[in-house]
Amino acid sequence: MERKDEGLAFMLRYENVAWYEDGRVRILDRRVYPTKVEFVTCSSHEEVAQAIKDMVTQSAGPYTAAGMGMALAAYECRNMNKEDMWEYLKKAAHTLSNARPTTANRMKRVTDGCLKAAQQAMEEGRKVDEAIFKRTIDSLNRRYATMEKVAEFLVDLFPDGACIMTQCFGETIVGMALRVCQKRKKIIKLFVPETRPYFQGARLTASVAQDMGFDTTVITDNMAAYTMVTKKIDLFTSAADAICLDGHVVNKVGTYQIAIVAKYHGVPYFVTGIPDREYESISQVTIEERDPKLVLEARGIKNTMEGVKGYYPSFDITPPHLVSGVVTDKGIFTPYNINKYFDTEVNEFY
Amino acid sequence: MERKDEGLAFMLRYENVAWYEDGRVRILDRRVYPTKVEFVTCSSHEEVAQAIKDMVTQSAGPYTAAGMGMALAAYECRNMNKEDMWEYLKKAAHTLSNARPTTANRMKRVTDGCLKAAQQAMEEGRKVDEAIFKRTIDSLNRRYATMEKVAEFLVDLFPDGACIMTQCFGETIVGMALRVCQKRKKIIKLFVPETRPYFQGARLTASVAQDMGFDTTVITDNMAAYTMVTKKIDLFTSAADAICLDGHVVNKVGTYQIAIVAKYHGVPYFVTGIPDREYESISQVTIEERDPKLVLEARGIKNTMEGVKGYYPSFDITPPHLVSGVVTDKGIFTPYNINKYFDTEVNEFY
Repeated sequence: MERKDEGLAFMLRYENVAWYEDGRVRILDRRVYPTKVEFVTCSSHEEVAQAIKDMVTQSAGPYTAAGMGMALAAYECRNMNKEDMWEYLKKAAHTLSNARPTTANRMKRVTDGCLKAAQQAMEEGRKVDEAIFKRTIDSLNRRYATMEKVAEFLVDLFPDGACIMTQCFGETIVGMALRVCQKRKKIIKLFVPETRPYFQGARLTASVAQDMGFDTTVITDNMAAYTMVTKKIDLFTSAADAICLDGHVVNKVGTYQIAIVAKYHGVPYFVTGIPDREYESISQVTIEERDPKLVLEARGIKNTMEGVKGYYPSFDITPPHLVSGVVTDKGIFTPYNINKYFDTEVNEFY
Repeated sequence: MERKDEGLAFMLRYENVAWYEDGRVRILDRRVYPTKVEFVTCSSHEEVAQAIKDMVTQSAGPYTAAGMGMALAAYECRNMNKEDMWEYLKKAAHTLSNARPTTANRMKRVTDGCLKAAQQAMEEGRKVDEAIFKRTIDSLNRRYATMEKVAEFLVDLFPDGACIMTQCFGETIVGMALRVCQKRKKIIKLFVPETRPYFQGARLTASVAQDMGFDTTVITDNMAAYTMVTKKIDLFTSAADAICLDGHVVNKVGTYQIAIVAKYHGVPYFVTGIPDREYESISQVTIEERDPKLVLEARGIKNTMEGVKGYYPSFDITPPHLVSGVVTDKGIFTPYNINKYFDTEVNEFY
């Protein structure tokens, strides 16, 4: 398999995002990386769905995991007749695409694409699991190509010597933007809020940036505003789990808060990604709530007394007036006319 | 010793804040409470200063610990002649009061008070360590009495059924405000940001509130803004490590950020405490930076790859335009005329 990701960190290598082979799917456990390098091995597509639900992988990882899960489903039903096989795959697609509610639209695009690849393979008498696997790798390559364009536009916005604040781990765009900086010899400093409760900022974003040779400083999530003052942050950027056509951005909880304090300090906030045409308005998005237990502990150690409750909205909503621009592969849009994005041909990559 | 704190949680009991006895000072280790109930035992006043530096105790704890440390210093020099003893105590006062720079002014008031008590005892031929110990307990009782008045004014501001957001663990005022709520049968719900990196919110504030029977929900520090929206927060309140006469508030890092998002959502922010007359303006305050290692780990587990840097300002600065009021034992002042507080007699308690 062609590898286009040399130079990106370990966790972004194709085979470490999620990989189907020999009737199993292997996923790098991003919940503990880089403290531990461990893989979760799934022997059924249901286990892949559970791994996605349990956040073994995150950011764009679940899209690849869902594709690999579909390949595994095809392996599971390889000895069925065509009709049963098709039913089996449709059921698997439903299970996988609904593993996390907030991104169910994008996940459905992935599993729809896999079903289409399966159908073609079945018609042409090719191996269905292989066809879905290939489709998943193709999709990853298309995402990388698209996000490289996004990264070029994003890096255009970075002043020389810029101090950039991030949020969570926006997988592909983080790696791509840093690679573009390297290519252009643009020096930037990164300030990375750790992103509780899973610490994706500290563990993943900071590790990728450090691995690629950038000056990287982690802060706790309560330091974003004060750091904007003391470290003179030039720009705040994040990826998004959904970009609605009405300009609302859904991303890892904390994004909204940083966007507010960025606005307060005159720091622009640029969100990266492709608008979600399924979401005409924010009212169509379900904000996923996760197990409150996770906010009551850190790295597996319970912080509170028995009886204390936790609240864990996985994402939050940033309104368009806090968004300076939506950086896409076709350039930068204001959040107030995102639908313009669809006036020209869309490079679908899910 | 008379105990006025029945009904407050374990960590607020006099003997658990910091306690001098038999030539040792015993301090409840708030860095691990309530996950573990452990005490740090100091055999010299230098060890007490180190424990304060290392944040074994926090909030008002260091003021009591410094007093107990002075009692220990008196014990250490009990066999010296008066002159040497006085020099020894003055040196100990310097060591203890400078253990943490941001609150050095308040700490100096504590150690000055201890020196005064020592001087009197020496003149009257009483045991110096006992005199300082008694002075420290008296000081704690005066603080409790003063903070009870503050709490009455604060609770006046809580609407019935209010959702209150806190920050960090403001020791005495938290316990006192909750006790006033109990007394008035005022039902409130608490939303408690966990307060990284030490989780004082989750571990201490939430545990005290839960222990006292209040509906208590912990959130991670990146959820404050979104929680204000979804849980309809009525009021944000915090204690302060310094309240400058120009209306700037210094408190645990994160306070500034919550104050900004509170303002954005129309949620009032009330700070509690007694203004610091030593700080005419914020320019006189040193914002302490602590070991960056602490933001790169959680509960002792390292989150990041080698080479990633950390930034750890222990406090931040909230400007007066984000402060709705300063709640004192004499009522509520606007941050723009705090010096009015000193127009009438001050009940000194350090």
